[in-house]
Amino acid sequence: MVDKSRSNLEIDNLDIEILSILMNDATTAYTEIAKELIVSGGTIHVRMKKMQDMGIIKGSNLIIDPQKVGYDICAFLGIFLEKGSTYNEAVEKLKEVKEIVELHYCTGAYSMFAKVICRDTSHLRLVLNDHIQAIPGIQRTETIISLEESIKRQITLK
Amino acid sequence: MVDKSRSNLEIDNLDIEILSILMNDATTAYTEIAKELIVSGGTIHVRMKKMQDMGIIKGSNLIIDPQKVGYDICAFLGIFLEKGSTYNEAVEKLKEVKEIVELHYCTGAYSMFAKVICRDTSHLRLVLNDHIQAIPGIQRTETIISLEESIKRQITLK
Amino acid sequence: MVDKSRSNLEIDNLDIEILSILMNDATTAYTEIAKELIVSGGTIHVRMKKMQDMGIIKGSNLIIDPQKVGYDICAFLGIFLEKGSTYNEAVEKLKEVKEIVELHYCTGAYSMFAKVICRDTSHLRLVLNDHIQAIPGIQRTETIISLEESIKRQITLK
Amino acid sequence: MVDKSRSNLEIDNLDIEILSILMNDATTAYTEIAKELIVSGGTIHVRMKKMQDMGIIKGSNLIIDPQKVGYDICAFLGIFLEKGSTYNEAVEKLKEVKEIVELHYCTGAYSMFAKVICRDTSHLRLVLNDHIQAIPGIQRTETIISLEESIKRQITLK
Amino acid sequence: MVDKSRSNLEIDNLDIEILSILMNDATTAYTEIAKELIVSGGTIHVRMKKMQDMGIIKGSNLIIDPQKVGYDICAFLGIFLEKGSTYNEAVEKLKEVKEIVELHYCTGAYSMFAKVICRDTSHLRLVLNDHIQAIPGIQRTETIISLEESIKRQITLK
Amino acid sequence: MVDKSRSNLEIDNLDIEILSILMNDATTAYTEIAKELIVSGGTIHVRMKKMQDMGIIKGSNLIIDPQKVGYDICAFLGIFLEKGSTYNEAVEKLKEVKEIVELHYCTGAYSMFAKVICRDTSHLRLVLNDHIQAIPGIQRTETIISLEESIKRQITLK
Amino acid sequence: MVDKSRSNLEIDNLDIEILSILMNDATTAYTEIAKELIVSGGTIHVRMKKMQDMGIIKGSNLIIDPQKVGYDICAFLGIFLEKGSTYNEAVEKLKEVKEIVELHYCTGAYSMFAKVICRDTSHLRLVLNDHIQAIPGIQRTETIISLEESIKRQITLK
Amino acid sequence: MVDKSRSNLEIDNLDIEILSILMNDATTAYTEIAKELIVSGGTIHVRMKKMQDMGIIKGSNLIIDPQKVGYDICAFLGIFLEKGSTYNEAVEKLKEVKEIVELHYCTGAYSMFAKVICRDTSHLRLVLNDHIQAIPGIQRTETIISLEESIKRQITLK
Repeated sequence: MVDKSRSNLEIDNLDIEILSILMNDATTAYTEIAKELIVSGGTIHVRMKKMQDMGIIKGSNLIIDPQKVGYDICAFLGIFLEKGSTYNEAVEKLKEVKEIVELHYCTGAYSMFAKVICRDTSHLRLVLNDHIQAIPGIQRTETIISLEESIKRQITLK
Repeated sequence: MVDKSRSNLEIDNLDIEILSILMNDATTAYTEIAKELIVSGGTIHVRMKKMQDMGIIKGSNLIIDPQKVGYDICAFLGIFLEKGSTYNEAVEKLKEVKEIVELHYCTGAYSMFAKVICRDTSHLRLVLNDHIQAIPGIQRTETIISLEESIKRQITLK
Repeated sequence: MVDKSRSNLEIDNLDIEILSILMNDATTAYTEIAKELIVSGGTIHVRMKKMQDMGIIKGSNLIIDPQKVGYDICAFLGIFLEKGSTYNEAVEKLKEVKEIVELHYCTGAYSMFAKVICRDTSHLRLVLNDHIQAIPGIQRTETIISLEESIKRQITLK
Repeated sequence: MVDKSRSNLEIDNLDIEILSILMNDATTAYTEIAKELIVSGGTIHVRMKKMQDMGIIKGSNLIIDPQKVGYDICAFLGIFLEKGSTYNEAVEKLKEVKEIVELHYCTGAYSMFAKVICRDTSHLRLVLNDHIQAIPGIQRTETIISLEESIKRQITLK
Repeated sequence: MVDKSRSNLEIDNLDIEILSILMNDATTAYTEIAKELIVSGGTIHVRMKKMQDMGIIKGSNLIIDPQKVGYDICAFLGIFLEKGSTYNEAVEKLKEVKEIVELHYCTGAYSMFAKVICRDTSHLRLVLNDHIQAIPGIQRTETIISLEESIKRQITLK
Repeated sequence: MVDKSRSNLEIDNLDIEILSILMNDATTAYTEIAKELIVSGGTIHVRMKKMQDMGIIKGSNLIIDPQKVGYDICAFLGIFLEKGSTYNEAVEKLKEVKEIVELHYCTGAYSMFAKVICRDTSHLRLVLNDHIQAIPGIQRTETIISLEESIKRQITLK
Repeated sequence: MVDKSRSNLEIDNLDIEILSILMNDATTAYTEIAKELIVSGGTIHVRMKKMQDMGIIKGSNLIIDPQKVGYDICAFLGIFLEKGSTYNEAVEKLKEVKEIVELHYCTGAYSMFAKVICRDTSHLRLVLNDHIQAIPGIQRTETIISLEESIKRQITLK
Repeated sequence: MVDKSRSNLEIDNLDIEILSILMNDATTAYTEIAKELIVSGGTIHVRMKKMQDMGIIKGSNLIIDPQKVGYDICAFLGIFLEKGSTYNEAVEKLKEVKEIVELHYCTGAYSMFAKVICRDTSHLRLVLNDHIQAIPGIQRTETIISLEESIKRQITLK
């Protein structure tokens, strides 16, 4: 039976429970979630629909081990702009560098902060020198290389 | 029909195509993937099984917008250890801090580098001061706060 | 006449107008404010009472020119703690150093950030060396001296 | 009775006592101050007039809690100029950025040092990127965010 | 007798043993190596030929004490480029500076990192100021001077 | 014929010529050097003997390509000691870490500066964390990774 | 004739003129100064006596060229204390290191800042490692070496 | 009697003794030095003449207490050039800034390092902003202020 009473745009504990299950395994069947939380399957559907409409749920990712497919280097880049005002154009250009998987405008010494996944140190050199440092407005970058990823997980909502 | 010929532990272009589809939407049905790539559904099953066995596929994530569920602050922490040799114990303690979603042993000035998701600046202060800086062996931390996330995506395999 | 209708704890444009006048001159008479904003004097009283109850208004300051009373040096201190966990005790001790007029727990490289007003460089040396650096848990400080204060004002609410 | 004897431009202990009372509460009535210090009310008037003429007293502020009126973020900015000689023009432009409540020309690595009050991290990003970093002559900024204000007070004159 | 069986391009323990002996003294006679490793002299020849063909062996160096021939200063330079994209041209110009004995494109704060051998501090000043900093695209350098070389050796392969 | 006249401990142009040839190829036969420089073979022997006695010549190295034998990572480490006075003991311990090929006591921010050759990033992590940072007296290290070696050569004596 | 009128402890233009002459050449005869400034020799004596009594004049130095007597290295040291409160004891110990010619308690990142004159880089290493870094309370030092002294002069009083 | 035997340009222990006395007090009479060192006055003259000819002795300074003549601020400036190659022109311009008493081309992060003596913080701001940072080629400066001078002396030659 569909849960009609929740028409307002707020989330409650049940929503959090549903999210928590799917954040760990996006492919869990709704019937399984329903059984675990002792509600109807329809309730799960309604809640998921609501959270998608609210923009809380943005999609799902298959999580792969980058090293297993040949991407050995995970690096963080602090990016210095020649002039802070070139930020918007620089972002557009950085979006075209597919090795960048995260980009932040940030506090601290750097203008921007990026996470980059590359095959090896030669690939990283190419990405830094030919693709990122060649972007107009980017003055220089500081690179930190991850030597081991000890924690990689989603936030715990409850 | 099942693809029997591929018993060796290597990945080919078809595997990459399958991964690429699921990395964008982990809930895509195998039948849909099969149709798109013009192979049988069984082939998709075999390949997925192989890549799970090889450890390439580690699971799937529901992607949510942390700000929509009240997590407004995304911060990066450079962590200085009192002594590099306390790394292993520190990692174990840091795993208990659930606001930490990524942790790296890294090159550069920091011993470790972490990504943290918090509700607000008060929550961040609590996490930093009461949970992280209280861990034996951690000397101090440098915090960078993300003011805007411009890029957030998976690596592009092809 | 007293404005009875506003019993709920929210502020409106009239409150902001009243605050803006008093933030520039805390001694402005309520009758003058009332005349300027074309409301009754009682309304000003009611609103001020409400904002005091809400904790919005914390008091008033006479603003003096520190240099005119012999306080020539305004300095900012980045404070490094030996261990982040000694923060609470350090704050208690720092409260006893009367030359410190602001203290923040902050992001970036420093554990804490302070603003200090001293008579001259000798006084600053004394405060740094004998009072602040002698506090247990404080490892070292980095000092920035203001050579000129170009802007000093309150936030503009409207 | 008016204190005629003090025509010269120096301040004595009584002046300091008066200032100390008003620095804590700018609205204290002169009669109250007079009673506390066991002098005539006229003396208070004469001394206040003298200190205003000397430029010691610059006005009074209502102190509000910025977070209670929606200003959650207090940040400090180290500002690097492209060229130190652009300081005067940069100051004029920075005066137009109303979120800046303090600005100093300073020693250390930064050319200038500012205190900024913003509503949230999005507002801070806007102020940094669109207003401050767009000013000609400003090369880049380093941002420190206050996670907790532990001390906020005036200097103690006696 | 010649070792015919090893035609494929891989190295084995015997190759490593040969390399290890010659890395310590490049002038050791093959007959001596053969005796030490209890193989024929021809085997040494075959293996050396293979490793030269594979590009493993790049030549040999006489090791001298630079201070004994008047080169007292060994310095490391962190090089900042005005723009990362000028790297290739800068490298070509740096190759002409004969005091540079190593040059790396590197992670961290510097764009490039060089090792320089000079006669004395005056010579170093000349090399820095007239030769290196005059190269278009090089903004500035940070110099670290070695006060004592405690270790200088080749990698240990076994 | 032997060059008897040179008994004093100084080097002349002929010595420099001999060194220059052997610094490029340590295995060049003395007869070949003699022919090139138009002196007798005995002269080469006498000069070499003299320079060995003077400590100018310290040996010879086979130069190999570390990447070709599986050593992909070349890194530079800035080493901070807990206390400068632990330098001598730390050096003794660092000599036991065979991945360190150069170690310098240096000016600038670091106490010591090392060059390290490792197989891959996992190997580097092991060397840093288990071998170097575990040494008593070493507080922390800063790692710079070479992404490309553009110049690698000996000093040019003439 | 003796200048009797100047009994108060202030300096005038004549004093400044006298100082300026002697600051350039401490051995200038008083009669010569008197002639140049068109006053009596006695006046010079009275003024010098007054300025010695006031502590303005602290002595005189023969200026030598350190490099000409074998002191080739001029270095500046930023000194970090383990704890700011060990400053006074550290100063006493540093006074015993005769190579230190200046020592300052300073703002910025360093606790103290010293100027050191040494014979060569080996001597500097010895002074740093055996004498300065061995002092209890001194954690580490950062060394800047002067490669050329372009200006060395006294302040210009007029 | 004149010491004729010493015509060669070398200094001996007696020279060092003479220098040591005059470095502490440049006005010591030669007769007094002669008596103390038990040599003839003529010897002192000959030796002084020789050391002046050799350029060892460059002059003499009256040492004054800058604070006693109104120069309260002693600061050190790290100077960053826009381009290292502008060094020579920048030095010429810096020589015109009379508050600069020392200037060095140096290792480390700064291009140049200067010592400046100013009357007060306002004077320092003027010197930095109007005189030094206005020089073409100078990008920015980092200022360290001395809060106390603990040691100020000449090198000890013996």
